[in-house]
Amino acid sequence: KKNLESEGGTLKNKTKSNAPKYNLKTPKGTKDWSPLEMSVREHIFSTITEVFKKHGGVTIDTPVFELKEILAGKYGEDSKLIYDLQDQGGEICSLRYDLTVPFARYLAANSTSSIKRYHIAKVYRRDQPAMTKGRMREFYQCDFDIAGSFDPMIPDSEVLAILAETLTKLDVGPFTIKLNHRKILDGIFEISGVPQDKIRTISSAVDKLDKLPWEEVKKEMTDEKGLDGDVADRIGEYVKLSGSRDLLEKLKADSKMQSNDSAKKGIEEMEVLFNYLEIFGVLPQLSFDLSLARGLDYYTGVIYEAVVEGSRAPTLAPAATAAPAGSKIQPKGVTHTGTKQGSKDAELKHESDIDESQIGVGSIAAGGRYDELVGMFAGGAAKDQIPCVGVSIGVERVFSILMQKIQSEQQASRAKQTEVYVMAIGDGLLAERMQIAKQLWDNNIKAEFFYKSKPKLPKQFEVVDKEQIPFGLLLAPREWAEGQVRVKEQRGKEEGGGNGDLIKIDDLIPELSKRISEWKKNEGF
Amino acid sequence: KKNLESEGGTLKNKTKSNAPKYNLKTPKGTKDWSPLEMSVREHIFSTITEVFKKHGGVTIDTPVFELKEILAGKYGEDSKLIYDLQDQGGEICSLRYDLTVPFARYLAANSTSSIKRYHIAKVYRRDQPAMTKGRMREFYQCDFDIAGSFDPMIPDSEVLAILAETLTKLDVGPFTIKLNHRKILDGIFEISGVPQDKIRTISSAVDKLDKLPWEEVKKEMTDEKGLDGDVADRIGEYVKLSGSRDLLEKLKADSKMQSNDSAKKGIEEMEVLFNYLEIFGVLPQLSFDLSLARGLDYYTGVIYEAVVEGSRAPTLAPAATAAPAGSKIQPKGVTHTGTKQGSKDAELKHESDIDESQIGVGSIAAGGRYDELVGMFAGGAAKDQIPCVGVSIGVERVFSILMQKIQSEQQASRAKQTEVYVMAIGDGLLAERMQIAKQLWDNNIKAEFFYKSKPKLPKQFEVVDKEQIPFGLLLAPREWAEGQVRVKEQRGKEEGGGNGDLIKIDDLIPELSKRISEWKKNEGF
Repeated sequence: KKNLESEGGTLKNKTKSNAPKYNLKTPKGTKDWSPLEMSVREHIFSTITEVFKKHGGVTIDTPVFELKEILAGKYGEDSKLIYDLQDQGGEICSLRYDLTVPFARYLAANSTSSIKRYHIAKVYRRDQPAMTKGRMREFYQCDFDIAGSFDPMIPDSEVLAILAETLTKLDVGPFTIKLNHRKILDGIFEISGVPQDKIRTISSAVDKLDKLPWEEVKKEMTDEKGLDGDVADRIGEYVKLSGSRDLLEKLKADSKMQSNDSAKKGIEEMEVLFNYLEIFGVLPQLSFDLSLARGLDYYTGVIYEAVVEGSRAPTLAPAATAAPAGSKIQPKGVTHTGTKQGSKDAELKHESDIDESQIGVGSIAAGGRYDELVGMFAGGAAKDQIPCVGVSIGVERVFSILMQKIQSEQQASRAKQTEVYVMAIGDGLLAERMQIAKQLWDNNIKAEFFYKSKPKLPKQFEVVDKEQIPFGLLLAPREWAEGQVRVKEQRGKEEGGGNGDLIKIDDLIPELSKRISEWKKNEGF
Repeated sequence: KKNLESEGGTLKNKTKSNAPKYNLKTPKGTKDWSPLEMSVREHIFSTITEVFKKHGGVTIDTPVFELKEILAGKYGEDSKLIYDLQDQGGEICSLRYDLTVPFARYLAANSTSSIKRYHIAKVYRRDQPAMTKGRMREFYQCDFDIAGSFDPMIPDSEVLAILAETLTKLDVGPFTIKLNHRKILDGIFEISGVPQDKIRTISSAVDKLDKLPWEEVKKEMTDEKGLDGDVADRIGEYVKLSGSRDLLEKLKADSKMQSNDSAKKGIEEMEVLFNYLEIFGVLPQLSFDLSLARGLDYYTGVIYEAVVEGSRAPTLAPAATAAPAGSKIQPKGVTHTGTKQGSKDAELKHESDIDESQIGVGSIAAGGRYDELVGMFAGGAAKDQIPCVGVSIGVERVFSILMQKIQSEQQASRAKQTEVYVMAIGDGLLAERMQIAKQLWDNNIKAEFFYKSKPKLPKQFEVVDKEQIPFGLLLAPREWAEGQVRVKEQRGKEEGGGNGDLIKIDDLIPELSKRISEWKKNEGF
């Protein structure tokens, strides 16, 4: 007496006999996806895919594991988070850590000099899981990358347009895309007097400014990383700034910035980029943020990170970072105070070994330009370089936001798409139900029936209610003999009640098809 | 001067400088999927998914790796083919070997007593790869399973209907579903006098009858497995038989079969199943084949395997096994001679360590009823049993068939869906092209433009031709100033030539939308 259930219950290990006991959990940092969760995930993927295809994207796939040497030396300190396969004789392999390195390997291996590709797939990191923050060991990335030699900032601007369009379509709420340029950042460090060998480590300290107050970051620079206090202060003057075009104007007017080749180049590129982003209508969502540094070494140009109000870590109070970017230059120390002080500080300090390669807490997508990664694989000659720019959308984040929404709005979400439930009133009529179901399937109508030869009517209605199946088809012996069946729209059951409409079996398919498409229209399919 | 390419070239490792040299290959038995291959794969998945959903299927997902103990002891000898993850501190895990065991674990863990679930995902086997036969170490399975306690053979018949419907929709050519019942097979062994402890090993010998002549199989039974020659001959009398309902009638009339409880039960169930399959219209594709044994221990009832003409291994000549099942009982030794004798025998013997759990050479899908697997996880008590029946479709097989078809028919397949290419005649007009592209994207039209500020017209047309983009939109300075652009349908270029139609920018969206939907209708979308 079991009905079809699309939703699982809670995890429990039954130990009622003395059969071998199994630990039925999934491995640490991984999870099972229920049918309802899968329907949300599929909605996310199809929304994202639609945008990617609209911009000329094609998709590829690579194996879930790569030769270990392909991944080695690409992720800095985070290489320790890579899953290795056991040596069972043969090649030494590792699970992919992201989709970018396999993409670069693919380009080099297949001599593909230019492509717009997207890839939606699972990646693996032996990180400390934080399920509540959506940080898993097995998780999806949705990547869009443009490879090829083109005129400056054109593909970069389209990737940013794609990011903005995708987040808008995903309906995750207001978001901000924080934007910076590696060359500007390098220029700031050079101007401030950071020794060349300290630039990457100081850069990674700066990147923490969205989670720590300036005083903490400065302390890390000076006490931990041995930077001169004056140098740190000079960095601070810049990296506290964020804004939009006005900030760009300020940097253009800054003689120190203009005297530095790297900064000058970065500023010029940003100006071109802003022009393109204006055409693409992305400026309102943008925050030019000099503290954005991104951890991965391979970025060589523009870098960005999208922050969504709803994606904030649960332990942090809502604050100004996620507010729409203002057009005024804001000293970051002021706007960000809300998240950085008070009782949460102690907790935040535990997070000080932040995984720089990860999409940070509160951020939902990230990316940038990496012009030299493919060349590393292709042999390192200048002619083998394939410049790339891309973005990676962290879908577990989006998923958490949408699941919360469904739960808070108590939306009637159904994982199952069945349109018609074929039922019998009295005497089972199994062969007849099968015959009708077959006819419906042949006409592309999604149909089910109860897997008993003589099911009780209430049991059949229970399924219809539980699964929210819009139409019931009732077969009764006498009506069947007269070549007729009843169609009953279940959605209006409470209101209308009634016994449904008697229709001829010969008219069943056109009649049902009409009603189903009307129902779909009303439901907003 | 690089155009967007959606297709990669051949694998080659460039070694032009003294940078570290990478082996750019994917691990043994794995492959990269190009955009064209992905578009075929997506077509297959969406076709399969549509059928699965039509029958009330919902989907779940499980992690790509499980705790090692979950997989241990489920695959008999083939457990040696399981990939283990390296012990990096923490849990010991293995990559999933199929989707059935994780499904059973899911049901037990989530106390799900009843579900129709499908799962399309990659599985991993450290098998000897045979790329030409589509046997990979990383490959997809598309599984549909019905779990729950229902009346006999109802879900079984729907799973077979789903299999037939899916293979028909996939358009893989004529196919046969070979069908048998574990209880009938066990009955045959008992009647013939096979000792209880030899039943599984003799069963696995019988399963080779589609690849080896009876004499070889008998030799394996007697010489290798120590079975009495007379016992083997008695088995042979039965397992050489195949047919349809007529075979069932013959077995019903067989007093030895009727005297065996197991065989009697199996025959009764088959009779019910045949009645249901007749309603579902599946009988014409069916061959009741007493030699079908399937290797996996967990099957407890009906078992089946689908064979497609096009899926035959390249080394085998086309033969009678894939012909539509006749209604006559056929001694298998006769019909199958074509594949079993002659010059191929030597080669076939090398395959004698057949992976029984694999979908066999030439077969495209397989499955059966397994009533006790979930119970193993749930604790073994009778009340924890969740009866299941399901099918697994081997999509790499289908993929090879469809790719061959595309190549042989020289179909103009395009991986990219771009509908409009926005071009400039003279002077670049980059900002204008961007502005138009933005407008098209906002109206859900798939559009691209050349990523150069002043691209040459021939270069732009090259892309349109290469990517088979149906519409070109041409911007020229003077026409633009007059608020007009040209639309040029590229498909008819050779025939019509001409400069396209001048239309007002204000009318662009409705005009283009109309033309695109007409084009789609003609292309059969």
